[in-house]
Amino acid sequence: MSSSAVKYARENHARFLDELKDLLRIPSISTLPEHAGDCRKIAEKLAAELKRIGMENVRLIETTGHPLVYADWLHAAGKPTMLAYGHYDVQPADPLDEWHTPPFEPTERNGNLYARGAVDDKGQMFMHVKSLESLLKTGGALPLNVRVLLEGEEEVGGEGIAAYVASKPADLKADFALVSDTELFAPGLPTLCVGLRGMIYTELEVRGAKTDLHSGMYGGAAPNPFVAIAQIIAKLKDENGHILIPGFYDDIIPPSAEELAAWESLPFDEEHYRETEVGSRVLVGESGYGVLERTWARPTLDVHGIPGGFTGAGAKTVIPAKALAKVSMRLVPGMTPAKAFEQYKSYVTAIAPAGVDVQARMIHSGDPCLIPVDNPYIRAATRALHEVWGKDTVFIRSGGSIPIVGDFAKHLKLPSVMMGFGLPDDNLHAPNEKFNLKNFELGIESIIRFMEEAGR
Amino acid sequence: MSSSAVKYARENHARFLDELKDLLRIPSISTLPEHAGDCRKIAEKLAAELKRIGMENVRLIETTGHPLVYADWLHAAGKPTMLAYGHYDVQPADPLDEWHTPPFEPTERNGNLYARGAVDDKGQMFMHVKSLESLLKTGGALPLNVRVLLEGEEEVGGEGIAAYVASKPADLKADFALVSDTELFAPGLPTLCVGLRGMIYTELEVRGAKTDLHSGMYGGAAPNPFVAIAQIIAKLKDENGHILIPGFYDDIIPPSAEELAAWESLPFDEEHYRETEVGSRVLVGESGYGVLERTWARPTLDVHGIPGGFTGAGAKTVIPAKALAKVSMRLVPGMTPAKAFEQYKSYVTAIAPAGVDVQARMIHSGDPCLIPVDNPYIRAATRALHEVWGKDTVFIRSGGSIPIVGDFAKHLKLPSVMMGFGLPDDNLHAPNEKFNLKNFELGIESIIRFMEEAGR
Repeated sequence: MSSSAVKYARENHARFLDELKDLLRIPSISTLPEHAGDCRKIAEKLAAELKRIGMENVRLIETTGHPLVYADWLHAAGKPTMLAYGHYDVQPADPLDEWHTPPFEPTERNGNLYARGAVDDKGQMFMHVKSLESLLKTGGALPLNVRVLLEGEEEVGGEGIAAYVASKPADLKADFALVSDTELFAPGLPTLCVGLRGMIYTELEVRGAKTDLHSGMYGGAAPNPFVAIAQIIAKLKDENGHILIPGFYDDIIPPSAEELAAWESLPFDEEHYRETEVGSRVLVGESGYGVLERTWARPTLDVHGIPGGFTGAGAKTVIPAKALAKVSMRLVPGMTPAKAFEQYKSYVTAIAPAGVDVQARMIHSGDPCLIPVDNPYIRAATRALHEVWGKDTVFIRSGGSIPIVGDFAKHLKLPSVMMGFGLPDDNLHAPNEKFNLKNFELGIESIIRFMEEAGR
Repeated sequence: MSSSAVKYARENHARFLDELKDLLRIPSISTLPEHAGDCRKIAEKLAAELKRIGMENVRLIETTGHPLVYADWLHAAGKPTMLAYGHYDVQPADPLDEWHTPPFEPTERNGNLYARGAVDDKGQMFMHVKSLESLLKTGGALPLNVRVLLEGEEEVGGEGIAAYVASKPADLKADFALVSDTELFAPGLPTLCVGLRGMIYTELEVRGAKTDLHSGMYGGAAPNPFVAIAQIIAKLKDENGHILIPGFYDDIIPPSAEELAAWESLPFDEEHYRETEVGSRVLVGESGYGVLERTWARPTLDVHGIPGGFTGAGAKTVIPAKALAKVSMRLVPGMTPAKAFEQYKSYVTAIAPAGVDVQARMIHSGDPCLIPVDNPYIRAATRALHEVWGKDTVFIRSGGSIPIVGDFAKHLKLPSVMMGFGLPDDNLHAPNEKFNLKNFELGIESIIRFMEEAGR
């Protein structure tokens, strides 16, 4: 099956890996101001690398935060144009003491490369770069037109790229996007992600007395915002995981019978998932739906923290004047953030217990998205994946949100091919993040093949 | 009405006030390790002052924390012995920017003395010392035997004095205790506090998944400890303020019809209380009970904070592995901390939603206490108060807890006379703490008269 580009990639695998390690040594943690210099450093390094391999019009695009990196190669007349997206920033590495080897000293162990960013997303983003190199260095040309757009703020909300994309610059004119920030459903199983949940992330504020009060003196007369916020949260979702906000489920477009049947046939062991991934005594969620449907295609509501009040060790007998709750809801196709937030806001206002004032604020939101699978780019991807992995591609969704995919669809009318090569146990955002070395290698081959197929 | 001691107190009022200011300038904040030296300094200063006025056997008693101060004068043969208790430590002063004058620069304004500790409890504790001085300097003797015991850890749980009292030292042999750490029900209204609520202060821990999980990936399958803890809290107390723990109200000894009638006749304006003291839109609590009964004689449950999870600004899409809640219950006569905790613990275990493990821990506890009003010391107090204030004493309770009063009763079999001269708006534990200067003056006279009456 080997094209000359694939052959080149195989011959240069060791170097590709060394170059990836160089990128992983740069702690480009986007959320920490002290690492802003590292973010710029890696952006410049990537720009230089894109230039070196033969990409053109390479430049940094400044944003209000860390810069974007842009490059293109547009000499495949009559061929489609691909927008290859990735991000060079990473999550913080703490808790540091849980890493077996230091997060910014990439280490090979048991066929994996361990480092912060190994899979999310430096390793996956770099597969794009090395695929382009392999094609350009062997054929002197690409089989289709390519624009590369890398961002450095994916882990902090991606404001810069969102603003840039929303401005619909001529630079981003393309036919489809390639996003490699997802995973294989199981080792060795070629996977395309074709649906993402949207979300609204809110902050709920509950105020009672005008100031903190002594719980001995005033307990029994003063409203307690923490009790009130608990009462409100308990009315948001029942103990069967059903969200109680009126109208919340009304507009949901459920997965088709065909899609559900396909999910049924995926190699998924609920007990193994419970034990190894979640580690709780039982799994929870809406009864009547399987785990995959619950996490991919049903809205959910989670509370992330309830700040305020007394949080120290020991005891303080205070009735705090206010309580906050970080509450988010995942949305599925058919739902919109604006409507979901309105429903939520009206409901929490209506159910507020006596004596407290309630305010709901939106922190951020993202649309759900569903990619139609009957387009030429998805078909090209499945052909490429079959060639490299020897298996039919499975179509999955993700319960998470990749807002840029929605932005590409909304502002640029681009369908995204979400072709990722992570694994469910790669420890994204956690200690001991890793990338399987074989997946890095086969991922590059898959992307080379994909570009060849898409440009055919 | 003036005894020579009262006359002396009046003549020396300005000096007494200056001496109090000297004490208030020492920031003896017991909870902050950097102020341990200030706690010792004020303890030594008080010991020196007790010696100077003629008290005997003056010494510091070391504890695991800040020292106790002890002194006695035991030459009133055939007379009862009074144990005068007070505390020299204070709460932290923050938020500093809300003070109109600095917390440790005592300032007179509008007939009040403003400083941290002005009323809680340096000012009140010092009334005891100055009463003793007035009696000793004018008569060369006291009308009864007196032991003085001051602590420096009241604001941090009083472990040192509790251990010392529990050891039942011969030094503390007495007939009754005088505790001035309470307030007048209203300005000019002589008041004795004859009941305190007890409490259990607990920490509730709820654990779900083995580690923090991404709420996009796992929302809909993984248990959310913050949702679970909210569901549990919502089942602890209903929206009418009724505690739902089975059996919780079973052993309550309600106030007598006579006591309730006395409370009815107190000058209490619920709307004024709501507006000026609480500042909430409405008052809450069990229906069918007035505010005084709810806060003095009914058990209550409050949540002080729900630490853990994500508490920063903005958003983090995490399903935390665990949540904590600081939950306390105030107990009333008839209830015991041990039984209340058992009931609470069984109940939270029983109502834990699927998928989470719940653990309830006791942080600390205190017995409720009720002082019989038909004892000679209470009668002596009411006579003394009538003489100084020209009014009949009102008997009130407090919703708070003064654990040392329970300890005196339990270990030393001492009834306490809780004769305090604070006011409801003295800003205890808050910025701009104050002590009314007239109350400081009349408080000293009241205590002189009380000792004379009790020793008659």
